Amino acid sequence: MKKVAIVMGSDSDLPKLTPAIDKLKEFGIPCEVRVISAHRTPMQAIDFASNAKKNGFGVIIAAAGKAAHLGGVLAANTTLPVIGIPVKASVLDGMDALLATVQMPSGIPVATVAIDGSANAAILAAQIIALSDDELASKLDAMRAKMTEEVLAKDAAVKAQFE
Amino acid sequence: MKKVAIVMGSDSDLPKLTPAIDKLKEFGIPCEVRVISAHRTPMQAIDFASNAKKNGFGVIIAAAGKAAHLGGVLAANTTLPVIGIPVKASVLDGMDALLATVQMPSGIPVATVAIDGSANAAILAAQIIALSDDELASKLDAMRAKMTEEVLAKDAAVKAQFE
Amino acid sequence: MKKVAIVMGSDSDLPKLTPAIDKLKEFGIPCEVRVISAHRTPMQAIDFASNAKKNGFGVIIAAAGKAAHLGGVLAANTTLPVIGIPVKASVLDGMDALLATVQMPSGIPVATVAIDGSANAAILAAQIIALSDDELASKLDAMRAKMTEEVLAKDAAVKAQFE
Amino acid sequence: MKKVAIVMGSDSDLPKLTPAIDKLKEFGIPCEVRVISAHRTPMQAIDFASNAKKNGFGVIIAAAGKAAHLGGVLAANTTLPVIGIPVKASVLDGMDALLATVQMPSGIPVATVAIDGSANAAILAAQIIALSDDELASKLDAMRAKMTEEVLAKDAAVKAQFE
Amino acid sequence: MKKVAIVMGSDSDLPKLTPAIDKLKEFGIPCEVRVISAHRTPMQAIDFASNAKKNGFGVIIAAAGKAAHLGGVLAANTTLPVIGIPVKASVLDGMDALLATVQMPSGIPVATVAIDGSANAAILAAQIIALSDDELASKLDAMRAKMTEEVLAKDAAVKAQFE
Amino acid sequence: MKKVAIVMGSDSDLPKLTPAIDKLKEFGIPCEVRVISAHRTPMQAIDFASNAKKNGFGVIIAAAGKAAHLGGVLAANTTLPVIGIPVKASVLDGMDALLATVQMPSGIPVATVAIDGSANAAILAAQIIALSDDELASKLDAMRAKMTEEVLAKDAAVKAQFE
Amino acid sequence: MKKVAIVMGSDSDLPKLTPAIDKLKEFGIPCEVRVISAHRTPMQAIDFASNAKKNGFGVIIAAAGKAAHLGGVLAANTTLPVIGIPVKASVLDGMDALLATVQMPSGIPVATVAIDGSANAAILAAQIIALSDDELASKLDAMRAKMTEEVLAKDAAVKAQFE
Amino acid sequence: MKKVAIVMGSDSDLPKLTPAIDKLKEFGIPCEVRVISAHRTPMQAIDFASNAKKNGFGVIIAAAGKAAHLGGVLAANTTLPVIGIPVKASVLDGMDALLATVQMPSGIPVATVAIDGSANAAILAAQIIALSDDELASKLDAMRAKMTEEVLAKDAAVKAQFE
Repeated sequence: MKKVAIVMGSDSDLPKLTPAIDKLKEFGIPCEVRVISAHRTPMQAIDFASNAKKNGFGVIIAAAGKAAHLGGVLAANTTLPVIGIPVKASVLDGMDALLATVQMPSGIPVATVAIDGSANAAILAAQIIALSDDELASKLDAMRAKMTEEVLAKDAAVKAQFE
Repeated sequence: MKKVAIVMGSDSDLPKLTPAIDKLKEFGIPCEVRVISAHRTPMQAIDFASNAKKNGFGVIIAAAGKAAHLGGVLAANTTLPVIGIPVKASVLDGMDALLATVQMPSGIPVATVAIDGSANAAILAAQIIALSDDELASKLDAMRAKMTEEVLAKDAAVKAQFE
Repeated sequence: MKKVAIVMGSDSDLPKLTPAIDKLKEFGIPCEVRVISAHRTPMQAIDFASNAKKNGFGVIIAAAGKAAHLGGVLAANTTLPVIGIPVKASVLDGMDALLATVQMPSGIPVATVAIDGSANAAILAAQIIALSDDELASKLDAMRAKMTEEVLAKDAAVKAQFE
Repeated sequence: MKKVAIVMGSDSDLPKLTPAIDKLKEFGIPCEVRVISAHRTPMQAIDFASNAKKNGFGVIIAAAGKAAHLGGVLAANTTLPVIGIPVKASVLDGMDALLATVQMPSGIPVATVAIDGSANAAILAAQIIALSDDELASKLDAMRAKMTEEVLAKDAAVKAQFE
Repeated sequence: MKKVAIVMGSDSDLPKLTPAIDKLKEFGIPCEVRVISAHRTPMQAIDFASNAKKNGFGVIIAAAGKAAHLGGVLAANTTLPVIGIPVKASVLDGMDALLATVQMPSGIPVATVAIDGSANAAILAAQIIALSDDELASKLDAMRAKMTEEVLAKDAAVKAQFE
Repeated sequence: MKKVAIVMGSDSDLPKLTPAIDKLKEFGIPCEVRVISAHRTPMQAIDFASNAKKNGFGVIIAAAGKAAHLGGVLAANTTLPVIGIPVKASVLDGMDALLATVQMPSGIPVATVAIDGSANAAILAAQIIALSDDELASKLDAMRAKMTEEVLAKDAAVKAQFE
Repeated sequence: MKKVAIVMGSDSDLPKLTPAIDKLKEFGIPCEVRVISAHRTPMQAIDFASNAKKNGFGVIIAAAGKAAHLGGVLAANTTLPVIGIPVKASVLDGMDALLATVQMPSGIPVATVAIDGSANAAILAAQIIALSDDELASKLDAMRAKMTEEVLAKDAAVKAQFE
Repeated sequence: MKKVAIVMGSDSDLPKLTPAIDKLKEFGIPCEVRVISAHRTPMQAIDFASNAKKNGFGVIIAAAGKAAHLGGVLAANTTLPVIGIPVKASVLDGMDALLATVQMPSGIPVATVAIDGSANAAILAAQIIALSDDELASKLDAMRAKMTEEVLAKDAAVKAQFE
């Protein structure tokens, strides 16, 4: 199976990426977790992205805050799908990272998920890989069914509580 | 090859989707263009999304403005990757559509591109499908190389103009 | 009397809905409290809304955060008035939920109240039901009179404190 | 049938209210169109709201721009449901009017629709009145069915255009 | 000397108004502190504003949060200068209150100070009254001179600390 | 009578200040119209403000766009009331000028009116001067009465149009 | 004298850079005008920045819109001062470009000027180079003096016009 | 070597400036730390800026919050490069300070860094001074190399942790 890379701009973002790492494990998708900075290690960013495909990656997840260039820099150096997670930093609630990630110019898309939307980035990566992996597709269907069950159970509990 | 669906919430958005349709044609990716409203034809939205996979679709592109729910509604009813294009409407410059598209709750991602980022939605769809289609991957590489050439040519022209 | 439904997208929003539930009780309006997710239980959302009228509901209150589609999805499947409460989540102070709730396209309104405006959603529901229920209308008048009395009492106290 | 009042803060907003007036006529709901300013004719605003119920009104629609206080002032003086339309003025795209209309304090709700959401205000008023008027409820159902038909027709046309 | 009224929409804002009350005391300006709600006690708001001049007031300070209508409602019922303090509430950092206070329509100004700018509201009131009160003008000059002294002292201390 | 200064940061803002100049003339308030830049003629800004009181001014109106420092710079050099008009420039709809004008630090208020709120700045100046000028106060009352009459006439016309 | 590079992400931004080019010419500073895209020609961006110092550049001006990464990418590959011009594109008035340019992480500053602030970028570059070039410093002083003269002349004209 | 001035509008901002002071020390750049308020000590601000060049300064760093005029006031009175740090205050997350600092009118640039971007202001100052100081340039290159090493080390650690 193709691997998913989880790349963060700073290792201080690692706790926010735990849900993504856990989700990928849950789906049995091999992943590599990396710290690569668009600004402090720009050559490594380019090297990583340029070689990602031949190194067995299928999707790259990039998480960065503030003037979040990481997703864009990686996307500029590969034609693999790049998923961007805008990370909330100390000011502006992640709005800066959201705009810096999603507003990419024509030609180089970054598939952006919600601010701090770590789990969803992993699920999106799984959905992409599942296009050619029926077993993974079944796992996704099962996860959805389980989510539905959980909400139904909560609904029943809350409904009963106020009857 | 898997098909790409381009779904818009209102046919008034069709002109904005022309770049996406053209890009997909350019890549030779079969596509179906649809008008399905999350609010005015909700059952059709669910039917379309629920059956998209078995109807041969690989990726769904959803374009909507204002309280843009289309991407989320489609994503809630399929595990195919759904790409959301927030459309600028008469007020707020598309910020409402961007937030209503990208800020999805955990479990149901929408891969969001820039406001009115029609071409990038198609390119992202192509990148996703290209994971299991080497010929398409080559086309994407070629498009990138051509983009680079075009910028280099413009750079040479502008540089010369001011020397 | 027609019932009011209080629907939340996630049971984590239940504490924020306590003021709405309490207000409805105070007015003697029967209510049903539900957890229904526009994205995780979309069919339940449609079923609930489609059958709300014949199940004796007069007004639906929908509370959701982030890309808050719940109000819109319910409103798309009923012609009962739907009141939307945008819920503040971990980022953006509820601005995403506000825009995703209020900026509905033409044809499908959601009557939006303030971010986290739980009590006001209940009062608005009561005002709507009171149009054909004089006793309830009297209770609303009494609540207003009481509010006025409370402010007048506070005014007197504060005025005296600084004389 | 109870009447609907359409109140605007300035007669320059009249063109924006035409869709609301037309919708109400289409539903056969009697309406009165008024120019009442929360700031320039405050006593008239209070008089109008205080007497609206006994003058046969069931719902008040208030449209105002900038620091849009009209909805709040009317709502403060009646327990009838008040629907607020935030109007886009020369700057800020109506964001000021939206916040000044929707962020009402606890006790006095204003049912806010989209910026310049004139038609939706009328539809919401109709939905409220229809709670005790089955004929009007049928008209609303018919309008929804027609909207669905229109989208389906457009879908068929667009789908065919790109096949 | 003319009195200054400090009016708050809710007594929960009292702690934020302490700097204004203290400043007025410091200047020896008589003041009256009131709780008057534009929405819960609208008639009292109008009565207060309409009679403010003949009751000896020269300036009215109005503090309110969220859809802050208090300043506008008071200003609509008097030609005395009304100073508005937008108050930060639980969401949006006071931006809603700022826009609802400052964006007044032509004809009815509210002199708006910073979000939670309580002390500045009092100083502005003093500056206005000082136009016809030389002693107060001298106190304002003295306050400025003292402020300058304080900054100069801090400058000297900080400069020395890092030499 | 004390004079009012109308100071603009750039003479390109002159057309936006015509309503202010006209209003002051209408009230018979002598005014001086000046172009003084906080950044291009900083010494003139300080000189003007420092000497404004002894030169017969009672109120200063400052209009500036973008990083609008003019109001603050003038206010820092006088204890006369300074009224700030945030001017909309080519981007951001005047939000930059609004924040740069209204968010003054404690000690130095700028009485801020709406973005491009030229007429209101003049009315506010008149209200301030009228505190010690009964004739001007009467003119303000008359203006209010006339405004009310105009709205009532428009109300009657619009009401009749739709009866 | 060290050269200044004016780099734009797209040649469509060239008209916006004319004021910068003209200013540099006016100061007699040699400049090179380039089209280099952070995303479409990433290797060229890195090459240009890495070699800028040894190629005789002293300052780099980078202009880009939307998710404006150009300034950051150049800054990440040189220790020369990089000045960023956020460019207004079709939506959001340049706010996306401003945040993507200015909110750089610790270690890699981009000296950001106003949205579309082309002339100021050139002046800032000149101020930087003038630190070790007294003749250029004199030109800057002269430009300032001329600006002051121009404002004084406009002030005299406007003042006279309204006397 | 030319000195760098670090000027803050209020000594309460001193803790936020520690990273800037430390960075300058690390580079061996002499600095002077000052408290000068654009509004409370305006003459000192002008004096300081006007004489900064002849007093041996090469760059001025200005840190201020809210309606942050300090950078602009200093820049208006010198042709030395002025670097602005927008400081986050109690509301709006520094967005007010950012706009008040960066949106300078044509002619007077302020080189703006990120909100609370203290260290970057110092690094930018060092980059500017290093244009004519090869030793300092080497230190900057070394700092970059060290930053790269640190990220590479973190990358290796994180990569290993998840293998």
